[in-house]
Amino acid sequence: MARLQAVLLSGGSGTRLWPLSREAYPKQFLPLAGEDSMLQATWRRVAPIAPSPPIVVANEEHRFLAAEQLRLVGVSDPAIVLEPVGRNTAPAIAAAALQAMAAGDEPLLLVLPSDHVVRDADAFCAAVQAASSAAEQGALVTFGIVPNAPETGFGYIHASDGEGVRKVLRFVEKPDTDTAQRYLDEGGYYWNSGMFLFRASRYLDELRKFRPDILEATTRAFESAKRDGDFVRLDKEAFAACPSDSIDYAVMEKTEVACVLPVDIGWNDVGSWSALWEVSEQDGEGNAHHGDVISVDSRDSYAYAQRLVALVGVDNLVVVETDDAVLVARKDRVQQVKDVVAKLKSDRRSQAALHREVHRPWGSYDSVDVGDGFQVKRIKVKPGARLSLQSHTRRAEHWIVVRGTARVTRDNDVFELFANQSTYIPIGAKHRLENPGTDMLELIEVQSGDYLGEDDIVRYDDVYGRAG
Amino acid sequence: MARLQAVLLSGGSGTRLWPLSREAYPKQFLPLAGEDSMLQATWRRVAPIAPSPPIVVANEEHRFLAAEQLRLVGVSDPAIVLEPVGRNTAPAIAAAALQAMAAGDEPLLLVLPSDHVVRDADAFCAAVQAASSAAEQGALVTFGIVPNAPETGFGYIHASDGEGVRKVLRFVEKPDTDTAQRYLDEGGYYWNSGMFLFRASRYLDELRKFRPDILEATTRAFESAKRDGDFVRLDKEAFAACPSDSIDYAVMEKTEVACVLPVDIGWNDVGSWSALWEVSEQDGEGNAHHGDVISVDSRDSYAYAQRLVALVGVDNLVVVETDDAVLVARKDRVQQVKDVVAKLKSDRRSQAALHREVHRPWGSYDSVDVGDGFQVKRIKVKPGARLSLQSHTRRAEHWIVVRGTARVTRDNDVFELFANQSTYIPIGAKHRLENPGTDMLELIEVQSGDYLGEDDIVRYDDVYGRAG
Repeated sequence: MARLQAVLLSGGSGTRLWPLSREAYPKQFLPLAGEDSMLQATWRRVAPIAPSPPIVVANEEHRFLAAEQLRLVGVSDPAIVLEPVGRNTAPAIAAAALQAMAAGDEPLLLVLPSDHVVRDADAFCAAVQAASSAAEQGALVTFGIVPNAPETGFGYIHASDGEGVRKVLRFVEKPDTDTAQRYLDEGGYYWNSGMFLFRASRYLDELRKFRPDILEATTRAFESAKRDGDFVRLDKEAFAACPSDSIDYAVMEKTEVACVLPVDIGWNDVGSWSALWEVSEQDGEGNAHHGDVISVDSRDSYAYAQRLVALVGVDNLVVVETDDAVLVARKDRVQQVKDVVAKLKSDRRSQAALHREVHRPWGSYDSVDVGDGFQVKRIKVKPGARLSLQSHTRRAEHWIVVRGTARVTRDNDVFELFANQSTYIPIGAKHRLENPGTDMLELIEVQSGDYLGEDDIVRYDDVYGRAG
Repeated sequence: MARLQAVLLSGGSGTRLWPLSREAYPKQFLPLAGEDSMLQATWRRVAPIAPSPPIVVANEEHRFLAAEQLRLVGVSDPAIVLEPVGRNTAPAIAAAALQAMAAGDEPLLLVLPSDHVVRDADAFCAAVQAASSAAEQGALVTFGIVPNAPETGFGYIHASDGEGVRKVLRFVEKPDTDTAQRYLDEGGYYWNSGMFLFRASRYLDELRKFRPDILEATTRAFESAKRDGDFVRLDKEAFAACPSDSIDYAVMEKTEVACVLPVDIGWNDVGSWSALWEVSEQDGEGNAHHGDVISVDSRDSYAYAQRLVALVGVDNLVVVETDDAVLVARKDRVQQVKDVVAKLKSDRRSQAALHREVHRPWGSYDSVDVGDGFQVKRIKVKPGARLSLQSHTRRAEHWIVVRGTARVTRDNDVFELFANQSTYIPIGAKHRLENPGTDMLELIEVQSGDYLGEDDIVRYDDVYGRAG
């Protein structure tokens, strides 16, 4: 049997789970259903049957998140294919297929969104193995979810009669409620999960047949890609020129070799807060709580607390409390969360895309207090990491180390600071912060100045390629 | 006509408006309906007709809050009578009466809770003047609110027929809904607002008649009181020995000179979040918003945001977001907020009584970040104020001034720091922080140590009498 190559599609910037999921740190990187992030959980699910390092297709902006999260679950040498712009799934999977074939063999691609929940991993793995032989023989196999409700939020796949892997009769768009009910009653209709199994070369062949323009642009972007450690940076100009399309439209609905294997694997796309409530553990009153939640006489609600949330007499609510924003939504209206995000975007507010804690390749910073002419940040620097050599024209900085060891460059001086030691970076001083230790470095930075924006920075040298 | 002496009862520790109102900084000190705090608004309402400095009866713990808030609305030389323990309204008003008569004249006391809203201040002042002559002639006048709904949350006053000030037939307890409806239909029943007008001496006479024990204990506590600037500190032992009772039970229900003047003055006791919603300005969908609130398709809700609150598709909700706690309650269930506070208390959690920002006589501190072995506070020191000379046995402190001027004492050194300057207080160093300037001093304090509790403090000298 051919090698099974996992392809984890991680390019989403889903805001349907705002304020927890935001563009700069979206859903697939969050631990929404358990300790692992969704990406990590997706990898752990397939690792037993597809042990080769995965190919991850991610947004350029998320490269360090993806790399770090994979490292934390023991993945070495993944190929992280970076999209300079989003072009939907057809080009993303084409790039992954090209990457997979670069090893010289002819693997089966197991293509998985990295932000879904699958409760029954064993059933899923068994399904993949059951579909392998059809895929090896040239079928483009999709996994169709056996529906348990007349869902109107998913596309459906109408399958021909039979057992196991069978021909797709047609893909159908999201139905209205009556149609969805009819699909459920008639049987033979399955939810389109966006999970696929096929030979890499076969997918590229079919793409060539139906959308040669996509294949050509993606191939150009892939061949001109810059390789940088685990990152495969698709060429920006070439990839931007690629038409944007989904694998469903570009290939699956057109090909004659589309097959479907119906599966019942505890699948949930976690596409909304109500979906997350469904897959979360609930107490006897139907409440799913995460964090410090006090509930008085409340039912059927989801609450996520970073500090403390008290619910009194409520039902069918979603309450999500983060550092800088709180969402309170009726559980059957959570699709309108996108209207909130749209409003924040149109007002150019940071909460649309950024969390208060902002992740960087070297660690993170969190703006814990802001006042007139000053700002206080908690800065975390990973072991061995170093920030760029930089200066600011309008702010000075006080640094107080509270954990670990800092190596500080300040103009011509280089010195180390330990917990409970501090230093001062005057306006204009060239400075750099490093963590020479093996534990996390944490420090409190008090910025002082008449302008405190992140864009007041001159970078002279940066190990992450951000200088100049 | 006798002098009108305002008595503002400010001893409440109401937690029905948690998390905004907490024991250490309760409702009467909050700007719940406008720019002024409830106490300030109460004073401004009566100042035109009772211009003598008010007598304020407050909890010992709130003395600096009360003094500072009165100063901010231009009150000079108030008498702030401090209760070492709460003993309900009969003793509180007795102490105020004794204080009022200490000036040597025979004033009319206008006794007002300091945490109610009165929308029509003119009508209220006119009512007070209309009641003055009866009060001068010896009546104990209470102001009865003309009911506009069958409220079950208030006691009622049944008045005899007539116009203007009339005899009270009886006080009745909070009724059930049917009884309340009957009161409304029959007329002649008014809500008991807790506002009174009477001669100071007359109240004391009636109290002597019905509850000599209360009068005696209060007199003893008043005569042994320590006077300290504007503060009249009732003697702790004597006042603690006083029976606890309300003016209604102790005097009004027993006296033969109880009168009532029905008033229609836009009164609201703001006794719950739903009451606050009622008195707040609402938009066309019945929403009352305070702060940064985004509302999508929501109705009839109250939202208070310190950061950002987004409401989606909700109705009849109360959402209150503070630094360290969020309340989400159905508007018709807000009386159960007390259950949340009770739970917090039984778990000995600070959110039961304290806000994250804690007020002190010299200013305030706000714990903006806490981590393993460190804590970051934003400290504000009022112009001219000075903290105690103190030391800590288990923590060091870094101070970075971000606004104003600090005078720092550190062991044998005294020096000044300006914005963007810092210093370090080692473990064990005797230190003091002062604001020698005329503007607010703000500084960021980073504490570092293995124990960071507020009780790790040795005070050597304190201008607020807290040393030793």
